[in-house]
Amino acid sequence: MDIVGQTRLLDTVRRFIRRNAHTHLDRVIEKTQPADIAHLLARLSAHDAKFLLKVLALDDSRTAEVVSYMDPDLATEILPLMEVDALVTVFMNMHSDDAADLLHALPDELSSVILDRMHGEDAADVEELMRYGPQTAGGIMGTDFFSLNRDVSAREAIAALQVAEDAEMVFYLYCVNEQGHLVGVLSLRDLLTHPPDTPLRAIMNAEVIKVSPDQDQEHVARLVARYDLLAVPVTDEYNKLLGIVTVDDIIDVVRDEATEDFMKMVGAGAEDILEATTIRSVFIRAPWMVLAAAGGIAGAALITTFRSRIEEVVLLAAFIPVVMGMGGNVGIQSATIMVRGLATGRVALRGTWTILARELRTGLVLAVFGSLLVGAAAFLLGRFDIMLALVVGGAILSNMAMAALMGSLIPVLFKRLNVDPAVATGPIMTTFMDVVGILVYFLFAVAVLSL
Amino acid sequence: MDIVGQTRLLDTVRRFIRRNAHTHLDRVIEKTQPADIAHLLARLSAHDAKFLLKVLALDDSRTAEVVSYMDPDLATEILPLMEVDALVTVFMNMHSDDAADLLHALPDELSSVILDRMHGEDAADVEELMRYGPQTAGGIMGTDFFSLNRDVSAREAIAALQVAEDAEMVFYLYCVNEQGHLVGVLSLRDLLTHPPDTPLRAIMNAEVIKVSPDQDQEHVARLVARYDLLAVPVTDEYNKLLGIVTVDDIIDVVRDEATEDFMKMVGAGAEDILEATTIRSVFIRAPWMVLAAAGGIAGAALITTFRSRIEEVVLLAAFIPVVMGMGGNVGIQSATIMVRGLATGRVALRGTWTILARELRTGLVLAVFGSLLVGAAAFLLGRFDIMLALVVGGAILSNMAMAALMGSLIPVLFKRLNVDPAVATGPIMTTFMDVVGILVYFLFAVAVLSL
Repeated sequence: MDIVGQTRLLDTVRRFIRRNAHTHLDRVIEKTQPADIAHLLARLSAHDAKFLLKVLALDDSRTAEVVSYMDPDLATEILPLMEVDALVTVFMNMHSDDAADLLHALPDELSSVILDRMHGEDAADVEELMRYGPQTAGGIMGTDFFSLNRDVSAREAIAALQVAEDAEMVFYLYCVNEQGHLVGVLSLRDLLTHPPDTPLRAIMNAEVIKVSPDQDQEHVARLVARYDLLAVPVTDEYNKLLGIVTVDDIIDVVRDEATEDFMKMVGAGAEDILEATTIRSVFIRAPWMVLAAAGGIAGAALITTFRSRIEEVVLLAAFIPVVMGMGGNVGIQSATIMVRGLATGRVALRGTWTILARELRTGLVLAVFGSLLVGAAAFLLGRFDIMLALVVGGAILSNMAMAALMGSLIPVLFKRLNVDPAVATGPIMTTFMDVVGILVYFLFAVAVLSL
Repeated sequence: MDIVGQTRLLDTVRRFIRRNAHTHLDRVIEKTQPADIAHLLARLSAHDAKFLLKVLALDDSRTAEVVSYMDPDLATEILPLMEVDALVTVFMNMHSDDAADLLHALPDELSSVILDRMHGEDAADVEELMRYGPQTAGGIMGTDFFSLNRDVSAREAIAALQVAEDAEMVFYLYCVNEQGHLVGVLSLRDLLTHPPDTPLRAIMNAEVIKVSPDQDQEHVARLVARYDLLAVPVTDEYNKLLGIVTVDDIIDVVRDEATEDFMKMVGAGAEDILEATTIRSVFIRAPWMVLAAAGGIAGAALITTFRSRIEEVVLLAAFIPVVMGMGGNVGIQSATIMVRGLATGRVALRGTWTILARELRTGLVLAVFGSLLVGAAAFLLGRFDIMLALVVGGAILSNMAMAALMGSLIPVLFKRLNVDPAVATGPIMTTFMDVVGILVYFLFAVAVLSL
């Protein structure tokens, strides 16, 4: 639904709520996609949302669907508006992975009340899932997969599929042996294209791509993207099937991980900053600022030690910002390119050294170009002062070359040391250039101007 | 496959090629995933790749699979190593969307030779697809979908599915009416869970989420992510089904669009810079550098007009970099947060004004904090010069507040004007702060120091 459609829907629903028009609301809900209802609830006032939820609650499975499309931050605002009984029913009707995610996000008191009142297998599944880290394969897997013994025939498998309750999104059929160990996988279409009496073991593909529950969600995402999978099975150390991670979860992972990288690169933290309070947001973002300030202050202190020089040549001061800015830009570009290349696996594909060498060549060319450009400007602004031009140009050349080297090398080093390369970009580059960049500049000044 | 596994595979294959061990190579190829073979080809020398391709070419459909996993840049290097006859066979065996993508990337001469020698329906499909822009729904859709008349029964549909040739990845079954117009959709499981005589029209969901071929791939990605779809049908203006965009393509879109945003934000262009030559890379990245240089030079020229001031207070010069850096950092953070929020739809979800207000509050708090911090440093470095502290602190306060405002507002404005918000971050912010930031600083200096 586009923005116009959303706004129109919002207006309609608000009007019906004001008019207490239950039947009309019911019809609107029926015709609207669950994902759109979830978004709608986010835009309503608490009173209106409560009203809509009551109308919605008449249909348990529909409500469960709507709730599974809420992102956790929305859910923490909206779900407490429902009565606990209704909430328990909703959670019993949800897929266990979605339920676990939302219970993680809800206030501890509420989530333990809900868990206590859920019963049977559902509650056990959910509690099991809540044990895994939220960004691991275990944390994003669902437990509603479809598995059968490998000796079952295609006909029996189809019959089993017809009565399977929770397997709403069946991507693959997983084959297990007598011990419940995962031994193969096949698609629904494979089932249909073989004679009904064929046992699954004769149809299945025994080379199953699988992950363990503690593996990072990024790793799972890379597998799905690389092999074009619809789902990846998660198995324990004995090869027992625990759950599956499905492709719809992977899209969210790819998107979230990219956002996380963006935020880290500008020192805005890995947390969901769009949802954070102002105070929290300030705390997340202040460290980079403090770091940048410290670098800048150190730079200022350095400049003061060259006090006599500056009084001599005022223009030297004038070129401080551009000398430092040129290095910073090229460094951040190199770092961004490397960070993203590492994240998408492109650097590994081409070979780290190939990419590093290419990046350094580019940096050097840009450095020569940049130093000539600004050096020429200094020559003119300084009224044909060749010495000033040499200092400015030389410092820019060194700074840009150094920044390209640091910017491309640091992410690779961090990756090797198992530190997230994304943190290497903005914060570290800026501070480094603040201090070293200015030092290089004044060293050039002392060297050239005392010739 | 992890990096260790990849390196080991590479070594093994190189050894077999050196030894001319065809049978061994054949066995390795058989046991390796097509995606891994594609990656492997990228790492081999031209000679070795040619050798491996010849062994591979014994199995047409396997080769086609491997080739469809190549990204276009790799394909342009590797495919010309094959003989034209073999290439034509490969393209005839590929899905038409993958074939069209690769033909786009190949040199025009080679791709027109291949197209000429492909025949029948395949060639027509591919040529049709090549007409759409590469980043549109039409450009990424495939034509191997599965559709039936809505009056067909479930039993007949299953029978049709069993003999369908190209429908290797069947996600949904699309229902059409007598005119070939798309009227409904159902899943394979829906087919199995209804009595065999039920006509599809009674099972199908008539509310089909679909797109037109010229819609942006980002829009399609948002639909898939929002409604957890496995495929989206693409229809023409008469509602005739042209093709489907599948979820595996969408994962690539989400990833590529994020990368594009990253690169634009640092002025490194939207092109695939990891694959570009040094010259090309320099051309892509130079504009930001020139812009930054121009800003810096303008800043320097500005500083020289305050020549007498600087001679008076050398410390003023010392604080130029930090005054500008503080503004730049906060501005880039605000811009990144807004750009990413707009890209993922989170800003629209929460309401633009809510997010803008939150962002500005955070910016203001950071500004107060930052100006106190650096102002205090100026007070100390200036040997308890309260005037200097006021100038530095005041300028930082104004610059940071202004940068937060610009950084969060510009992406929103650009979005409204249908310009990509991502270009608004790095390049524009840096240049703006270079010029305005320094002007504000010296205005403060003149105002305070002449008190």
